[in-house]
Amino acid sequence: MVDVLPSWREGKIRESILDFVVRVTREGGPDYVPPGERIAVFDNDGTLWCEYPLQVQVFFVLDELRRMGTTDPALLEKPAVRALLAGDVQALAGMPKREVFEPAFMVHAGMSVDAFKGAVGRWIEGAKNPRNGRPFTAGTYRPQRELLGYLRGHGFKTFIVTGGGIEFVRVVSERLYGIPPEQVVGSSTKNAFHATADGVDILKLPQLGSFDDREEKPANIELHIGRRPILAFGNSDGDLAMLRYTLAGPGARLGLLLHHDDAAREFAYDRDFRPSPLGEGLDTTDQYGIHLVSMKNDWRAVFDD
Amino acid sequence: MVDVLPSWREGKIRESILDFVVRVTREGGPDYVPPGERIAVFDNDGTLWCEYPLQVQVFFVLDELRRMGTTDPALLEKPAVRALLAGDVQALAGMPKREVFEPAFMVHAGMSVDAFKGAVGRWIEGAKNPRNGRPFTAGTYRPQRELLGYLRGHGFKTFIVTGGGIEFVRVVSERLYGIPPEQVVGSSTKNAFHATADGVDILKLPQLGSFDDREEKPANIELHIGRRPILAFGNSDGDLAMLRYTLAGPGARLGLLLHHDDAAREFAYDRDFRPSPLGEGLDTTDQYGIHLVSMKNDWRAVFDD
Repeated sequence: MVDVLPSWREGKIRESILDFVVRVTREGGPDYVPPGERIAVFDNDGTLWCEYPLQVQVFFVLDELRRMGTTDPALLEKPAVRALLAGDVQALAGMPKREVFEPAFMVHAGMSVDAFKGAVGRWIEGAKNPRNGRPFTAGTYRPQRELLGYLRGHGFKTFIVTGGGIEFVRVVSERLYGIPPEQVVGSSTKNAFHATADGVDILKLPQLGSFDDREEKPANIELHIGRRPILAFGNSDGDLAMLRYTLAGPGARLGLLLHHDDAAREFAYDRDFRPSPLGEGLDTTDQYGIHLVSMKNDWRAVFDD
Repeated sequence: MVDVLPSWREGKIRESILDFVVRVTREGGPDYVPPGERIAVFDNDGTLWCEYPLQVQVFFVLDELRRMGTTDPALLEKPAVRALLAGDVQALAGMPKREVFEPAFMVHAGMSVDAFKGAVGRWIEGAKNPRNGRPFTAGTYRPQRELLGYLRGHGFKTFIVTGGGIEFVRVVSERLYGIPPEQVVGSSTKNAFHATADGVDILKLPQLGSFDDREEKPANIELHIGRRPILAFGNSDGDLAMLRYTLAGPGARLGLLLHHDDAAREFAYDRDFRPSPLGEGLDTTDQYGIHLVSMKNDWRAVFDD
């Protein structure tokens, strides 16, 4: 019988998920967790959708800069912005995520948040991953969408905790994952109230508010959610602090790391993927009690087809 | 028939609330708003519970400083901290909220967020308002609890957006208002991931993260919620930007300001209340289309009794 999590192959990982959900939902059981406290957090890039050869948002900024350019001398100083303007995907793929994302966030400074979301929504309709020709919106992982639905069906509240821009991800989170905007935590620019005769808006400022990666993920979980999750799912070293924070709480906990080891159906990469490596995570799964999920072996399907 | 909002007196304000809810929930109607977008934001101090003669959190810090003192020279320089150490409520009541809250937030720097919440939870069980002898937890306004429940019963998602400390308010929000921690937005210190042999925690840092008042309220609404509310309820000039942001969106909107004009049942104060005045708000209700709620005339009851 495979009505539940049909895209997950039978095996240790699928069992550990089903066991965990049974334990925390069994009323009167020793590991019971009331529904309100069933907080599950998921990284986005590389965990819920494809991030290879670069995160989706990088392609958005690349197209935006092509369209509008920039004459901002502070931005033009950044190697990532020069690579974005040149459309040099290979150079970008050789930089750590933060080096690309921080200046990329600044590109829309001065725009209202509503206008920014409109631009993202229009762009993402037609945009495709240059490596596999798949529309970015078709780059979500079917097993993960099943897992999100399965958890919500058992009283979990599901959150995204992403290094990507919080407003960018919010444009697609409900439609792609059934996760409403207020359950998305992410990197952010500072923003400001702005009232004129034309309207009252929130403007994006050039200053970074938070780069939601590594140790900043659990800090932002506390700021935005205010409870320690009982389940965390990531795919890179940037998710390790969030996994450790989750697993260190009392009672039943589940921490999972997705290993991209499937060159045939998606991509195979880990330690050497500069934008978001998985190395320390691979070395410490036993130490922290993290389950390593093999895309190749644990997933029956990767995408919808 | 008064099954609905029984503590609200019949009249213009109660009608405006009922009308608004009918309009935004009528499927196919011109003002229909899908459930996910029915975001309602409420200030806390003075809007959902009594803030007179000072906000509840000030009394908490006052008791904490009495208990543990401080030798931090940076803190001892602050007039508010000296007044807190001396238990000088009158001096504190003469200061703007930010002057009191900012140093008050620093008092717990270095403590884990979990330990802080434990301290708040223990303190609030026994603590009472010195002016009316009422336990702080019995200082919530019955009409507002009815309104929160009424809105949720009609598909609204209710949020607190408070100048008070986000972790402080989260300790009581679910029990007092039925609002879970993740739907509380507030002032915050920065915090940090901290892993030792003893555990993995989030520590409170001495730096202020956000003082969630005035223009910072709508900016934080965007950061935490990511959608423009359709209903906002406040009681001071600190809520005016949030009200304007809410009312400036398209479609049906409702903005309310509670006027403390009821010396017999609660307190009467507005322009001259230094910690959180209502002056500009009183002068601009017509300009911005804000409904002024009279505690004395619009509420049949104030507290539970």
